Amino acid sequence: MAQHGLLMKIDDCLLTPLRIIPSEKGAVMHALRCTDEGFSDFGEAYFSTVKKGVKKGWRRHRLQTMNLVVPVGRIRFRLHDGRPDSPTFGLFDEVELSPENYQRLTVPPGVWLAFEGLADGLNLLLNIADLPHDPAEVETRDEGF
Amino acid sequence: MAQHGLLMKIDDCLLTPLRIIPSEKGAVMHALRCTDEGFSDFGEAYFSTVKKGVKKGWRRHRLQTMNLVVPVGRIRFRLHDGRPDSPTFGLFDEVELSPENYQRLTVPPGVWLAFEGLADGLNLLLNIADLPHDPAEVETRDEGF
Repeated sequence: MAQHGLLMKIDDCLLTPLRIIPSEKGAVMHALRCTDEGFSDFGEAYFSTVKKGVKKGWRRHRLQTMNLVVPVGRIRFRLHDGRPDSPTFGLFDEVELSPENYQRLTVPPGVWLAFEGLADGLNLLLNIADLPHDPAEVETRDEGF
Repeated sequence: MAQHGLLMKIDDCLLTPLRIIPSEKGAVMHALRCTDEGFSDFGEAYFSTVKKGVKKGWRRHRLQTMNLVVPVGRIRFRLHDGRPDSPTFGLFDEVELSPENYQRLTVPPGVWLAFEGLADGLNLLLNIADLPHDPAEVETRDEGF
């Protein structure tokens, strides 16, 4: 049922369609299951909000894999492969996620990530990471969004 | 209503205050870390939305522990201890969660849960469960909300 990787140019970056199950009372929106491709371990889950037109990033993790889901609003993600040993080293890619394009983006360690809020109201991102937050394994840069 | 890390009335139900870290670009809202009390294992994370005035539940899990966070809207949770061997067997409790009362509710197996949307717009619930969804370990009932 889950497709993977097909739409992303950068090696090991996965884009996995997720189900939204509507009902009269409200929806159920899948995010991540322990048996899914892209899941390795649970370290931390947190939300990040980003206002329209605002950019967060760039950042990359030395160790952490991110699993990103957008249940509210619309967010543009930009990726840049910063792994010298990767077959796609140096490539850029981007994808817009929202409830209308409800997919999970898996970003492996070493890949730069930046994102921008696109909707007028709330833009909400859930990251389910395989390691808890540790500033020592995060690098940031400003240029090139 | 129990607050600030105190136990709820029902044994093993935890209410844990969570941090919201604001910034000009948008906030970071904590949800769950692998080192937190209430975390045992990762099975599945999913969202549930519930319209204003609509009730979902009751349901209880035989095996699954839920960790519930409300990043958008306002949701009233009702709990009922259905464990005959619990010191609080038969007790009811309730709590309202929202970004304004930003806490994580941990619900152990055997405790009945129902919830109701309270805000006009979106009411969004994240459940981080220690087991993936399995209808065989879920019971439902309608009465007594």
